[in-house]
This record gives sequence, structure tokens and C-alpha cells, in this order.
Amino acid sequence: VNLILIEADEVNEDGVATLTDVRADHARSVLRVTPGAVIRVGIVNGPMGTAEVLSVGPFRISTKSFRAAATPERPRVDLLLALPRPKVMRRLWAQLAALGVGRIILTNAGKVERDYFDTHLLQPEVYRPLLLEGLQQARDTRLPEISVHKQFRKLVEDELDRIEPWGRRIVTDPSATSTVRAALAGASHSDRVLLAVGPEGGWSDFERDLLAGHGFMEASAGDRVLATTTACVALLTLAHDALREDRER
Amino acid sequence: VNLILIEADEVNEDGVATLTDVRADHARSVLRVTPGAVIRVGIVNGPMGTAEVLSVGPFRISTKSFRAAATPERPRVDLLLALPRPKVMRRLWAQLAALGVGRIILTNAGKVERDYFDTHLLQPEVYRPLLLEGLQQARDTRLPEISVHKQFRKLVEDELDRIEPWGRRIVTDPSATSTVRAALAGASHSDRVLLAVGPEGGWSDFERDLLAGHGFMEASAGDRVLATTTACVALLTLAHDALREDRER
Repeated sequence: VNLILIEADEVNEDGVATLTDVRADHARSVLRVTPGAVIRVGIVNGPMGTAEVLSVGPFRISTKSFRAAATPERPRVDLLLALPRPKVMRRLWAQLAALGVGRIILTNAGKVERDYFDTHLLQPEVYRPLLLEGLQQARDTRLPEISVHKQFRKLVEDELDRIEPWGRRIVTDPSATSTVRAALAGASHSDRVLLAVGPEGGWSDFERDLLAGHGFMEASAGDRVLATTTACVALLTLAHDALREDRER
Repeated sequence: VNLILIEADEVNEDGVATLTDVRADHARSVLRVTPGAVIRVGIVNGPMGTAEVLSVGPFRISTKSFRAAATPERPRVDLLLALPRPKVMRRLWAQLAALGVGRIILTNAGKVERDYFDTHLLQPEVYRPLLLEGLQQARDTRLPEISVHKQFRKLVEDELDRIEPWGRRIVTDPSATSTVRAALAGASHSDRVLLAVGPEGGWSDFERDLLAGHGFMEASAGDRVLATTTACVALLTLAHDALREDRER
């Protein structure tokens, strides 16, 4: 943990938050903070800065210095992901949040098993702590927005343009000749990037055509066939890297 | 599994291999092959091509067509990794092999717990099947070479130049201003790339200075602090992507 995240409603009117859960344990036993120490703290979906430790038992911190702190920018990259099996999804939440993603759109597809949608991992009270874990690793406060869609066609045809303003859309395929970088060349700063990652068995021809018809360009992250977790990490990394260089140019 | 890997000594003088383990089960129950089917097969560290299924019980394939098949190039990117905790290492083997890495050099560091070296995950009979799993996912045959080093200083000062011919060396740090792409610009085709990834708590100043003194340039994969698994996947992806564009230019 490289940042301790607190909820806005945990801060009282004096700017003091009292933490009693694993965050307090972590600060005491791993960070070994003592009263007077200054630690990195963020407010979920809010500013990130430093807070002063007032006491360690109970664990109380003052966020008075937060008046000057800035809220991190929302990551510009979003993910449209064919729902993987629960075991994979469990590990993915924190990794996606750590890499930085503005929105995660989970969808059905021909090669997604229907019962994957029954998992408790799609319930906010289960995935939210996993997302927070990733943010605390990466030092970010912006929780990705999550939506779950059981009908791929309805999602792409009727819902997507409303959920995700049209920006750059990429669907990945190891046989594509364009790189992610090339597909993002010249993206404007207000363009959001949406990366579509298919199920382990790949998109069907129908699904691929539907995506192509809704603005998704094919690109690849190399010619190797990657499992879902590795593919998501690789693609988010490449997209952020392309946007980063673009910003620095 | 997108490729079935067999060992050279599993092929008899008629070019026929008889498989009895999980590979035969996979071919029968997942790929649902029948006699006469043509499947993707690779020889470990050898050529990759197609083989004909002669029978499914016992599961026998003919590799006669292999005379014309090519051996994949060895990945140009290598990894110098501070040994992570066993739980992380277990998941990393297959992912690293899937992404493509020529050599994995595991090392001690100040923030590596000594008992991490006691894990059975560092025994070839344990990690080799995990590496093969990653290669079968990614359609590659080239097993990474593995070495384990309990003395960081001795490794860097005395052993590294022998193990890893001098090419491009990169040590990653979220605060570095150079990107991986910039650090690899103009690399010649014979240059191997060595990426150093530190322990979760980071390299010590001594370790960082020692690496700098042995040719490692600092670069970052972005300003987020990533856990070991995510960091390795991100860095290998960026390095391969930079070399790929270089090759295509």
C-alpha cells in the first residue's frame, strides 16, 4: 500500500478521520507510524495529499492540509471486456485499478459462459474493496465506473454511445497489423480511449463485425496469444504509454 | 492452450509422438480432435508447425510435416527480477513465458526476504511445466533460461556480463523521466534488452547505484506504482512493442 484511501464521509467537520479497520493495522504494523508522522492519504474520488497522524490507538489522522491538494485526473482509457471466469475476474479488479482505467464495461459474448454472471464478484460490495486495493497500490483516488451487460448486441447498438462518448475505439487481435500506438496517433486530449478485449476463445465473426461497424479499429499488442489478465495489462499499458508520449510531445 | 508442446525425445524415429498426459486430455475434450485432424504442435526449443492426429486413444500424432517448420526466434528481452514472494512467483512463470522472455535472472536484494529462496517454485521440475503452460498459451516453443542468485552484488559485479552480453539495460522507477521506448531507441538488432525490476519495497540506494554503474539506464512505465506482476507484464510489453516498431520501420 502506497497510499491510504479514506471515504469522504469518514472525515468529520474538524478534518479528522478515525480508522479502525485494516488500514489502521497496516499503518501501525507495516508503515510503523507514530503520532506526528505524515502519511500519504487520498479521499476516494477526491484529492490526494498528506495527512498528519494524531494518534495510533485509536488511529486518527488530520486532513487539514487537504485544502491545497489536487484530485488526480480520471484515467483517459476505458475497457470493454468480455466477462472472464470468476477466478480471473477476482485477480483482475485490483490490477485494472492499479493500471488506471476510467470505466470498465463488462459484457457477455458468444464464448462467455452464462453462469459467469452469477458470481458475487460482480457485486459492488465485493469488487469495490478490490478496486480500492489497486488504487492504494498505484497512488490514485479515482474509482473506475463499472457496468455489467448481459446482451452484447444491445450494448454495442443501443447503449455504448451513451455510456462512452465517441473517442478512439480499439479491438485487439493478434493478427492485426496496426499497433495500439498507431491506432491512437493524433488522438485529441478530450478523446477517451476504449479498448475491447474478447473472451479467451475470441470474438465471433458477428461480434467482430458489430464492433467494426461501431467504430472499433483493429490493433494488436504483438503476435502472441495472451490470456485475459495478461492481455488487459498489456493493452492498458500500451494505451497509457501512447497517450503519455503524446502529452509530452 | 493454442499450441501443444512436445519434447524432442517424445518423437520416435518415424516422427510419431504418443501423448498420455494432460495434453492428450486437452486435445480430446477441449479441442475435440478426431483422427485425421491437423493441430498446432511445437517441439520444446525447436520448430513449430502442424501435426496430423493419427489416433486419439492412445493419442498419437505425426510430425512428418515438421521438416519444413521454423523455430521461433528467441525473445530479445530478458528480465532481472528481485525474487518476489512465492505466491506471486507462482503466477508469474506462465505470464512471463507467454509474453516472451529469453532469460529470467532471479536475484536477492535488500528488501527480498531470505526465505523466499526456499520455495519449491525455484526448482526446475516445478517451474518448467508452468513455463510450458505460458508458451502453449502464446504459441511459442522457446523456453526462457533461468538462473537464481542469492548475492546481488556478486551477480552484478562478477556474473552479469558473462550471463548477459552487454546490450541495453534498463532499471525501472516511477520517478524516471525517460520512457522505455526512449531508452531503447536505436537499439541494434543484435542488442539484447535486460529489464531490472526491483522488490515491492524498491531497490536500495546501494543497489540502484550498483546497477547504474553497470550500464542500467533509468526509465519508467508511467508514474503509477505497480505490484511486481503488473510491473513485469507492463515492462515486457513496452520493451517488445518498442523493438517491434523498430523492426517494422
